Amino acid sequence: MKAALAVVAVWVGVSGVMGSIPQVKPTVGQVWPSPQMQQPNNTYMIVRPETFKFTTTGHDCDILRNATQRYMKIMFPDKGSRRSSIQPWSKTKAFTGYLDEVTINLMAPCEEKPYNDMDEHYQIKIDSPDAQGIGTIMAQSIWGILRGLETFSQMLIPDGSAFMVNTTQIMDFPRFGHRGLMLDTSRHYLPVAVLKENLDLMAMNKFNVFHWHVVDDQSFPYVSTAFPNLSKLGAYTERHIYTPADVAEIVEYARLRGIRVLPEFDTPGHTQSWGPGQPGLLTPCYTGSVPSGTFGPINPINEDNYKFLKDFFTEVTTQRFTDHYVHLGGDEVSFNCWQSNPNITAYMAEHNITGDYSKLEQVYITKLLDVIAHLPNKNGYLVWQEVFDNGVEIASDTIVHVWKGGSTAGEEMNKVTKAGYQTILSSCWYLNYINYGVDWHAYYDCDPTNFNGTDAQKQLVLGGEACMWGEFVDRTNLIARTWPRASVVAEKLWSAIDQTQSTDAATPRLEEHRCRLLGRGYGVEPLWPSFCEADI
Amino acid sequence: MKAALAVVAVWVGVSGVMGSIPQVKPTVGQVWPSPQMQQPNNTYMIVRPETFKFTTTGHDCDILRNATQRYMKIMFPDKGSRRSSIQPWSKTKAFTGYLDEVTINLMAPCEEKPYNDMDEHYQIKIDSPDAQGIGTIMAQSIWGILRGLETFSQMLIPDGSAFMVNTTQIMDFPRFGHRGLMLDTSRHYLPVAVLKENLDLMAMNKFNVFHWHVVDDQSFPYVSTAFPNLSKLGAYTERHIYTPADVAEIVEYARLRGIRVLPEFDTPGHTQSWGPGQPGLLTPCYTGSVPSGTFGPINPINEDNYKFLKDFFTEVTTQRFTDHYVHLGGDEVSFNCWQSNPNITAYMAEHNITGDYSKLEQVYITKLLDVIAHLPNKNGYLVWQEVFDNGVEIASDTIVHVWKGGSTAGEEMNKVTKAGYQTILSSCWYLNYINYGVDWHAYYDCDPTNFNGTDAQKQLVLGGEACMWGEFVDRTNLIARTWPRASVVAEKLWSAIDQTQSTDAATPRLEEHRCRLLGRGYGVEPLWPSFCEADI
Repeated sequence: MKAALAVVAVWVGVSGVMGSIPQVKPTVGQVWPSPQMQQPNNTYMIVRPETFKFTTTGHDCDILRNATQRYMKIMFPDKGSRRSSIQPWSKTKAFTGYLDEVTINLMAPCEEKPYNDMDEHYQIKIDSPDAQGIGTIMAQSIWGILRGLETFSQMLIPDGSAFMVNTTQIMDFPRFGHRGLMLDTSRHYLPVAVLKENLDLMAMNKFNVFHWHVVDDQSFPYVSTAFPNLSKLGAYTERHIYTPADVAEIVEYARLRGIRVLPEFDTPGHTQSWGPGQPGLLTPCYTGSVPSGTFGPINPINEDNYKFLKDFFTEVTTQRFTDHYVHLGGDEVSFNCWQSNPNITAYMAEHNITGDYSKLEQVYITKLLDVIAHLPNKNGYLVWQEVFDNGVEIASDTIVHVWKGGSTAGEEMNKVTKAGYQTILSSCWYLNYINYGVDWHAYYDCDPTNFNGTDAQKQLVLGGEACMWGEFVDRTNLIARTWPRASVVAEKLWSAIDQTQSTDAATPRLEEHRCRLLGRGYGVEPLWPSFCEADI
Repeated sequence: MKAALAVVAVWVGVSGVMGSIPQVKPTVGQVWPSPQMQQPNNTYMIVRPETFKFTTTGHDCDILRNATQRYMKIMFPDKGSRRSSIQPWSKTKAFTGYLDEVTINLMAPCEEKPYNDMDEHYQIKIDSPDAQGIGTIMAQSIWGILRGLETFSQMLIPDGSAFMVNTTQIMDFPRFGHRGLMLDTSRHYLPVAVLKENLDLMAMNKFNVFHWHVVDDQSFPYVSTAFPNLSKLGAYTERHIYTPADVAEIVEYARLRGIRVLPEFDTPGHTQSWGPGQPGLLTPCYTGSVPSGTFGPINPINEDNYKFLKDFFTEVTTQRFTDHYVHLGGDEVSFNCWQSNPNITAYMAEHNITGDYSKLEQVYITKLLDVIAHLPNKNGYLVWQEVFDNGVEIASDTIVHVWKGGSTAGEEMNKVTKAGYQTILSSCWYLNYINYGVDWHAYYDCDPTNFNGTDAQKQLVLGGEACMWGEFVDRTNLIARTWPRASVVAEKLWSAIDQTQSTDAATPRLEEHRCRLLGRGYGVEPLWPSFCEADI
């Protein structure tokens, strides 16, 4: 039917033979995202699950021990089971020997937790001229070792009961330091198990920031010890919540995978769900001279609110989340309610800003930023682009998050960096906007530094984030809809710019990667007519 | 972000209060699809899982026994487990007594298998004036009993460890006899377990036809005993197949749920995957005077092909599928390859149809229909609309399947029925075409009889089918993407036309139904910001 036609069109330039052969022929043993430098050879070593082990020669720590155990399971899920009993591996391809051991050489002590711009360089050598017959993963940082382990796990090519590994050398590091994925747990609740599953997939795609848009208008699942009523009255139900233990579990799970958890508490708009649990916080809207019973953004003229925000963010940044940064939101503030409120009108007259509601928004943001500036941990912050657009005075180390309309995004990146601020891009990577057909090409064609600006300006681009807003996703479809589409963004943010110019070149590698993730047990959706061994 | 805005717009006229309260407040104990006639009361009976049972007073059979056992599990999944130990039910709502037994009165012997236009009427009485304190499900046919059991299961309202049931009377029957869902197992393979899960959901939405688009260009998963090479060389792999046992399992699973399995083997186009296993079947395409090595539609001038089709469809209709009807496809035949083939050109000159390739298509279809007309079981058939559009002579009992462009669909329905043919509609129900946002309103606003035509013409509209083409769905996303969007089509095809005019009225009922299906263990996706008890 139509669908079939639509797709035939899609294949032009992408597909191989039609008919019983799948349109996209996957690569074999290629790494996603593509490493910066790789020197493949036409020889192979054989990895036997029964005898293979990782050994540590350099520094060691809990993150490393946890990771080697984890990757043994990822690489050899069927170890000791039926899989081992299927036909033995062959030596068909130029065989240079058995790889029974990969040495992990961490050259500096472990850092305790991941952070902005951490070192993620690593090197892999398999049977290299200077180290024949052996395998090594080496890095200056535990974060590099984690990335190297993922890369090594992707190099294994099933061959009977064993695996072939190309005798290759890899030197790799990320193009951008901020490679994020944003999830929204307000429009729909996402169980902790699903958030962890998503963190697994992030690690397998070398993402390093989980931007957690915890609360919004629709619900307040975050449990605050200091203000328990926020979730008690703001969550969908008393079961649709994230307890302190839940948050700690997620932060630790992410830490062990070299992923930062960046919490967002978006104000003054998008805060309807805060209202019931914190009387006085939201602006009462008026009909004529009487309150209508509905509420607007946080009330900027109620001084008590800044005390509340100080205590709230203090708890967030000292007792829940360990990252240096917090995302303060600041997007899409509607002025209607403020306009209806006579006390607001009086305040504005008093301060000579009558009628200029973005000035009122500035008043709020300025006081909020002052609160944040005095937090115990002196946290850094990110804000959505409106805060910058509205000309609010923001700290010089503020990271401006660009999200608006694809076409204007370039100008915005130029403005923001010209003003000397660091920035990350999401405009072209709103994965929640779905379309029929192959929609990932647009993600792959988008580049955070593709705007008019000096090299100095482009240095201020820290990276970007894929966003999956929650209006239409919950535990039933989050993983399938986010992946492998987010993998496309992952490669744009990790790999060298000249390696990510062609969707045609990426296609067979992406096909292999999608089947790889499916084979590892994750329900990631197909990108075109295709099959994987793990379909059945 | 943008996403949030988009949704706020969506809520106009649909939503209740914003903020922590979900936008859509679900109904409680409402039935989906809406019954034709229901007389609710403001009194309730209490159903206790420990003591409740179905009893049979009328005729009995394996389908009925299987169904009562199945619905006991659907209604009381936690029977005897922790759920029973939670707080006891209350008698708050006007309590009229315990409903410990529902009598099933099948007034005529069971029919062995479902068929086109089978009787699906049923009646439910709970504590009715003429039968106080008892519950009854009665019908003239086993199919009506099955629909009644689903309806009864949806009437249960959890209340502590028990359930409340409104003391209501329902008289119900479908608006249309053909209420189908089409799945495509060629673009992606769907495991038998997923097809069964989908059949469960079809039964829970009172669909009665599983239209199985088994094979297409991309792969040939159907195993033919007579022609084993078709799947051996045409399937994605030797594991991506449906054996005779698989087909039998699916047909039986559907039969027990009152669902017909309508197999489609689409020819002469969409047949690339048939080629490798059946040399001579497809038309060799030429470059100049030499075969190019590629192939086109089935070769209409090779007489051996009609012998093959006779043997193939004989096996399909006598040894695999039990339904009286078979879907013959006939859509989207490309003429390029035929045009390139000198033997085809010679044949057409010989038959004075030079240049008129739709005439050549007619030659093929006419011969195919002759083959079908002489099958042992004298099967009826469906064809996609092109077969009618091209003016091929088709049997008077042919069902024409309308799928093309929404706007022209009405005219097509008019033409087809004016010509005296029966028809089903799919044009507006291509669920594979996804969009961002709330997209089900268009499905609900579409009506198969909404075209210019006489009442006699509209009598020829048998119903319709939701179609989920397989280019972008496999086991990872089929269920979530198909449901509950297909539920919307289900109600349009079952419920009275005047009951299905308002998406606003349907919204809270659809919300309850979605949470119901999620609660039953099916990963059906959300339709808007919302929550269900089963989220966690």
